[in-house]
Amino acid sequence: MIVDLNCDMGEGFGVYRLGDDAGMLAIASSANIACGFHAGDPLVMHETLTLAARAGVQAGAHPGFLDLWGFGRRPIHGERPADVEKAVLYQVGALLALAQDAGCPVRHVKTHGALGNIANADADLALAVARAIRTLDRDLIFVVMPGLETERAGERLGLPLAREIYADRAYAETGNLVSRKLPGAVLHDPVEAAERVVRMIEDGAILCLSGRRIPARIDSICVHGDTHGAVTMAAQLRADLADRGIAVRPMAEVIGA
Amino acid sequence: MIVDLNCDMGEGFGVYRLGDDAGMLAIASSANIACGFHAGDPLVMHETLTLAARAGVQAGAHPGFLDLWGFGRRPIHGERPADVEKAVLYQVGALLALAQDAGCPVRHVKTHGALGNIANADADLALAVARAIRTLDRDLIFVVMPGLETERAGERLGLPLAREIYADRAYAETGNLVSRKLPGAVLHDPVEAAERVVRMIEDGAILCLSGRRIPARIDSICVHGDTHGAVTMAAQLRADLADRGIAVRPMAEVIGA
Amino acid sequence: MIVDLNCDMGEGFGVYRLGDDAGMLAIASSANIACGFHAGDPLVMHETLTLAARAGVQAGAHPGFLDLWGFGRRPIHGERPADVEKAVLYQVGALLALAQDAGCPVRHVKTHGALGNIANADADLALAVARAIRTLDRDLIFVVMPGLETERAGERLGLPLAREIYADRAYAETGNLVSRKLPGAVLHDPVEAAERVVRMIEDGAILCLSGRRIPARIDSICVHGDTHGAVTMAAQLRADLADRGIAVRPMAEVIGA
Amino acid sequence: MIVDLNCDMGEGFGVYRLGDDAGMLAIASSANIACGFHAGDPLVMHETLTLAARAGVQAGAHPGFLDLWGFGRRPIHGERPADVEKAVLYQVGALLALAQDAGCPVRHVKTHGALGNIANADADLALAVARAIRTLDRDLIFVVMPGLETERAGERLGLPLAREIYADRAYAETGNLVSRKLPGAVLHDPVEAAERVVRMIEDGAILCLSGRRIPARIDSICVHGDTHGAVTMAAQLRADLADRGIAVRPMAEVIGA
Repeated sequence: MIVDLNCDMGEGFGVYRLGDDAGMLAIASSANIACGFHAGDPLVMHETLTLAARAGVQAGAHPGFLDLWGFGRRPIHGERPADVEKAVLYQVGALLALAQDAGCPVRHVKTHGALGNIANADADLALAVARAIRTLDRDLIFVVMPGLETERAGERLGLPLAREIYADRAYAETGNLVSRKLPGAVLHDPVEAAERVVRMIEDGAILCLSGRRIPARIDSICVHGDTHGAVTMAAQLRADLADRGIAVRPMAEVIGA
Repeated sequence: MIVDLNCDMGEGFGVYRLGDDAGMLAIASSANIACGFHAGDPLVMHETLTLAARAGVQAGAHPGFLDLWGFGRRPIHGERPADVEKAVLYQVGALLALAQDAGCPVRHVKTHGALGNIANADADLALAVARAIRTLDRDLIFVVMPGLETERAGERLGLPLAREIYADRAYAETGNLVSRKLPGAVLHDPVEAAERVVRMIEDGAILCLSGRRIPARIDSICVHGDTHGAVTMAAQLRADLADRGIAVRPMAEVIGA
Repeated sequence: MIVDLNCDMGEGFGVYRLGDDAGMLAIASSANIACGFHAGDPLVMHETLTLAARAGVQAGAHPGFLDLWGFGRRPIHGERPADVEKAVLYQVGALLALAQDAGCPVRHVKTHGALGNIANADADLALAVARAIRTLDRDLIFVVMPGLETERAGERLGLPLAREIYADRAYAETGNLVSRKLPGAVLHDPVEAAERVVRMIEDGAILCLSGRRIPARIDSICVHGDTHGAVTMAAQLRADLADRGIAVRPMAEVIGA
Repeated sequence: MIVDLNCDMGEGFGVYRLGDDAGMLAIASSANIACGFHAGDPLVMHETLTLAARAGVQAGAHPGFLDLWGFGRRPIHGERPADVEKAVLYQVGALLALAQDAGCPVRHVKTHGALGNIANADADLALAVARAIRTLDRDLIFVVMPGLETERAGERLGLPLAREIYADRAYAETGNLVSRKLPGAVLHDPVEAAERVVRMIEDGAILCLSGRRIPARIDSICVHGDTHGAVTMAAQLRADLADRGIAVRPMAEVIGA
């Protein structure tokens, strides 16, 4: 039994740095690299690609809204799908170019923050993202949430998909994440979070707050690395997975892409 | 006898537009498209690529400094060549991705504004730009100024080169442009400018203000399109070239790339 | 009978310009000056303040969301009122400083684009804007829409208010603007638009698409200047007002502030 | 004997933070607060003003070039003094507005990074900065380097001046800082740095690398806070000053402004 651990990395900009990338590169198997719109710049991107390659961690693009101040987390509604498609093409294309220089293959694309949240609920936007990926490379893996619009868009366009769950977020009845603004949305206890993840993987199902169980294929687990506690949680999770005989491998290997 | 007319295009951003792109697409044979750092955004870039393809105008990347406020014209000295290389990779990569979607080949790269000025005088920076181009595609044409560092860097890395002159700028003794801050730096009379260009092409030499004649291969003429007068000047030049039996063709054709 | 004509101005950034400010300064009596977040920069702001002072047009601040790419028109929901308050303080403070140098008093504040739309419907956000204004200067006029949250917030904090209508926008049943995305939202015929404005002023009421008539005090009319047609519409309106004996005066004079 | 310790603070942006502001607020007596161009945003600025007021640390504005990516450290030459003046007005005005809300007086202005370096060597630019300060408030203290253009500009316009030395930077023969690119430019040993500062204060002179002694009035010592080592150095310096009976007080008190 194998699963991927994906983590956002390269979220610095200029003199700024965010998260413990070195710590997470030792734990995660796939890195989602910011592409300069919500975070990241050419130097940070190149450095992160280089470090990922060295650590044997799979690199992927992590496009977001053009909103450095809001770190791509502010919901910008009403964007035209055709415009979002171009913004994704731009960001992923920029990363692909830097990766060519760094000698590091880019294997997946995952939307960041508010862009991801909106795409998961908006079929047209999800299709726009998927179309941008397909245009660039039909073999790029689209990281999606099982049961939501990103998964449907990826299936419709025939992209290789990695279906992910979140280690530290509660699930609503719909299979979507509980909004961060609501109580209980974020799990803080590493032990509890790791146990829940193992349960979901062994059950092959998303476990909602309500107790509902939504059968789902799970290829990857999203862990965060932007706080000290987050790295601790990821390490706990990795240890628990090992205990249950679940190996951690890059998502391309997990899905056989 | 053939020569290329290259022109900066796609210099809008968000709601802003700059220059008469439609007017210039009817006159120029190559378009240098801003890549989002000093001007341009994913939507403008895509639109310009599409219009260039439709007009039969060769598309190229026009990377610059990350300085929207200064339109990439402010000299930022002291940048490390390795950093400039990554910034060029990022910008050209982004354009290549959008071009893949627009179905428009990208055939050349030309540095914009202060980045170009500095690279023309700084061997390390010129090499950094050339390396970025070579990494992405050894067949991309590097637009250079004859006798300056960009030309030397391109020759050293074996890139196909298009050597350009400026239609509306005076030349100093060195073969470099007279600074815009000095009197006589910019030619405003379309007739006079067109005559000088024809003379340079027929002579195969750059004609300096001092009267000095620097033999040079001339593949392309840079014309501007950001004012009404500029379009008039470009039209005048195109007419004069036709009168002398000099055909205007995209630079790839001129240099046989 | 007197009324103010307010118009957005100074919406350039760096090399970019937007709208016919010179044309509108000859027609409008109050100028809403962008403050660098959705448009505008220190140079454009200073120049616009200077031109407004020269033209005898009242200057005001026009703060918006930090979103140059979207020109402040993209709805960014979920902003904390305390954060919006600080963003308004920052922008208006910057304009006040430049105005001190330009020798041009700043008399009013009007929110731009999506910030205005959201504030008109969100009591907490409207209060945040009003609080920022009051902190800076209790005599600054808050430009509000009659019947909406901005008006209520301004009344609650005791700010001098200028109640405005839009010359070229249709009104929904609620007295709010019909969304630009719906058909009929924007009036394009100058004659029709001017007639409707005169009717609203003479009736002292907002006239909704449905035929509903909402009694309202009207101190100011918002006209646009970003297209040639818009200047024509404003000129037509100004002529019609003159025909009906309605004088156009800066909003401070209209409300006796 | 009293002297001020000034330190750059509030250098975050959006989700990013830089430096140990809490640590430095316990050591420094004056805080130079970034104003949103090279770092800082309305929220960070307001928070830093509030924390400074609480800690009894004097707040000042720290305007820089509009260059978030380069953190205002990239030299942008050729800016017109009139443009720099407006950029300083904008930034200081924004801080003044937030300070009005935070209930924290702003007492000084110090230029950041490359803007400061260039102003120290360019009389016109130094005057432009000084003029912006005088326009806003003739009682604002201008932080200058003894013997350089900022000091001359401040004297010419009659501004209250605080003359500063750098705790961790070597001085060239001219009394200007040795460029960071040269060896020995930065002092890393806290003990050595503190000893040198005490010597300069007790001697009333700048001590150059060459051994040259330039008599100078010293009102303030600039310490950095962006690394752990920097806070250690500042603490060491504060302890050494106390040992020699030199009290640390805000610069307004030191110069009797």
